[in-house]
Amino acid sequence: MESGTLGRVTVLGCGVIGTSVALALRQSGVRVSLYDRDAGALSEAVDMGAGAPLADGDPRSDIVVIATPPSGVVAALRDAQARGLGVVYTDVASAKAQILADAESAGCDLTTFVPGHPMAGRELSGPAAARADLFTGRQWALCPTPATPPGQVAAVAELVALCGGAPLVLAPDVHDRVVAAASHAPHLVSSALAARFAGADETLLSLVGQGLRDVTRIATGAPDLWCDILEQNADPVAAVLEEVARDLAEAASALRGSGRVRTGVLTDLLTRGNRGRAHIVDAAPDRLAA
Amino acid sequence: MESGTLGRVTVLGCGVIGTSVALALRQSGVRVSLYDRDAGALSEAVDMGAGAPLADGDPRSDIVVIATPPSGVVAALRDAQARGLGVVYTDVASAKAQILADAESAGCDLTTFVPGHPMAGRELSGPAAARADLFTGRQWALCPTPATPPGQVAAVAELVALCGGAPLVLAPDVHDRVVAAASHAPHLVSSALAARFAGADETLLSLVGQGLRDVTRIATGAPDLWCDILEQNADPVAAVLEEVARDLAEAASALRGSGRVRTGVLTDLLTRGNRGRAHIVDAAPDRLAA
Repeated sequence: MESGTLGRVTVLGCGVIGTSVALALRQSGVRVSLYDRDAGALSEAVDMGAGAPLADGDPRSDIVVIATPPSGVVAALRDAQARGLGVVYTDVASAKAQILADAESAGCDLTTFVPGHPMAGRELSGPAAARADLFTGRQWALCPTPATPPGQVAAVAELVALCGGAPLVLAPDVHDRVVAAASHAPHLVSSALAARFAGADETLLSLVGQGLRDVTRIATGAPDLWCDILEQNADPVAAVLEEVARDLAEAASALRGSGRVRTGVLTDLLTRGNRGRAHIVDAAPDRLAA
Repeated sequence: MESGTLGRVTVLGCGVIGTSVALALRQSGVRVSLYDRDAGALSEAVDMGAGAPLADGDPRSDIVVIATPPSGVVAALRDAQARGLGVVYTDVASAKAQILADAESAGCDLTTFVPGHPMAGRELSGPAAARADLFTGRQWALCPTPATPPGQVAAVAELVALCGGAPLVLAPDVHDRVVAAASHAPHLVSSALAARFAGADETLLSLVGQGLRDVTRIATGAPDLWCDILEQNADPVAAVLEEVARDLAEAASALRGSGRVRTGVLTDLLTRGNRGRAHIVDAAPDRLAA
């Protein structure tokens, strides 16, 4: 897809997501300015052809993409708006309500901010792991507030489309609740199961099978980055974890008991699990093109 | 592999496991007698070439394989021993200590019983889902008591090898603790997460990705069969679930709080999850040949 109206984009943060956005935009002929406070990451992204280093004399960008870790988004947004770097601003953090509240408290201009969240994997990090096709066929949530004019949302939706993604507009709190259930809480559930094997001896590992491997597959990723993500979506994630913990504690209590009550509690949980799994299997895949 | 000393085996229960055992043994030239109280399942297994229907005049088998659902094993064992159907008896249920205790209470002869548990998948059920190579390269736990002479264990180990499996001798309580952590508890953890989507609307399903699909992959299987399995291994499964529920409740509580305590609790859980996942990845695969 060729760029229609996007001529220039600035990407702040040359991690795997920021550099992937930049590479995808470059393929569509968009001019990209890059910045990272880590000079090594910046020059690596530049060397990959992701764009040119952001310079003082650069013209104002159509869109500024803030691709810092979640806890750095608001400070980067305030700074970028103060410098007038762009016409519209977006970010790529995986929780939205807290960032919007903090941005409002920090005096950011919400009329030019269209919070975003591309649903793309990132088992690897850093510019070297970036790929121009990282977002191909992926959902990309956009969470504008009522203060944001439709034109600003349309501009960011064009950027998403140029990256190969599928824009999906959701209210920030709805987005956060959905992502808590579909991504953030599952990460901790998977971790809590994997944690049982943290001090595992050979006997405990002797009968490990594919089921356990699947359930714990996402119990990876840097704890500091994941802390940052989870703390930005704290209450919605806590709500899901409380429900899962309650179901598991009830199942444990039933197993410690006996008779019909025990069978009833277990059958109910297993049946709800079957039903939920069927919905998940039927759901539209995150990689739409696959 | 050709049979060395096994001439005749009786398989009680023509589900996917029993019929797969029978098919594998037939390929090695072992004579197989089959029984299932469901005449349709029995004739289906016979038609597949898994063996001949068990008849009153059949000579005594070298081994009787009890492949009923877990809750039916002890009654089948007692009946088979009373009829003198075999020299050695084994079963395929996925928990062992309870069956051994019940078998002792029921007056079964433990000196001729070598409890077994093949680590083979069974997303599908019934004889039609059986495959002669179901156990190829799979671990197959054997859990004899001190009362069992080594010769009896060796005979069942030969049967396992003829089926392509790898015999692994474990004490019954150790086996149950390992399987609780590696298989039974993960099934309920996966179910408890999937249960969050039991009444899911389109919005909740809009951002489902591969991570959630992996963590919930095993939240399937008939609830009544799984209840039977879980109730046979109740205390070890409960112990694992209590630990997972505690970790998740603490994480939720930390997320409802703030500051360094919050970060500390989350970082600790994520770090233990990373460590456990690394052990699981390094563990010997269940399918040794793969």
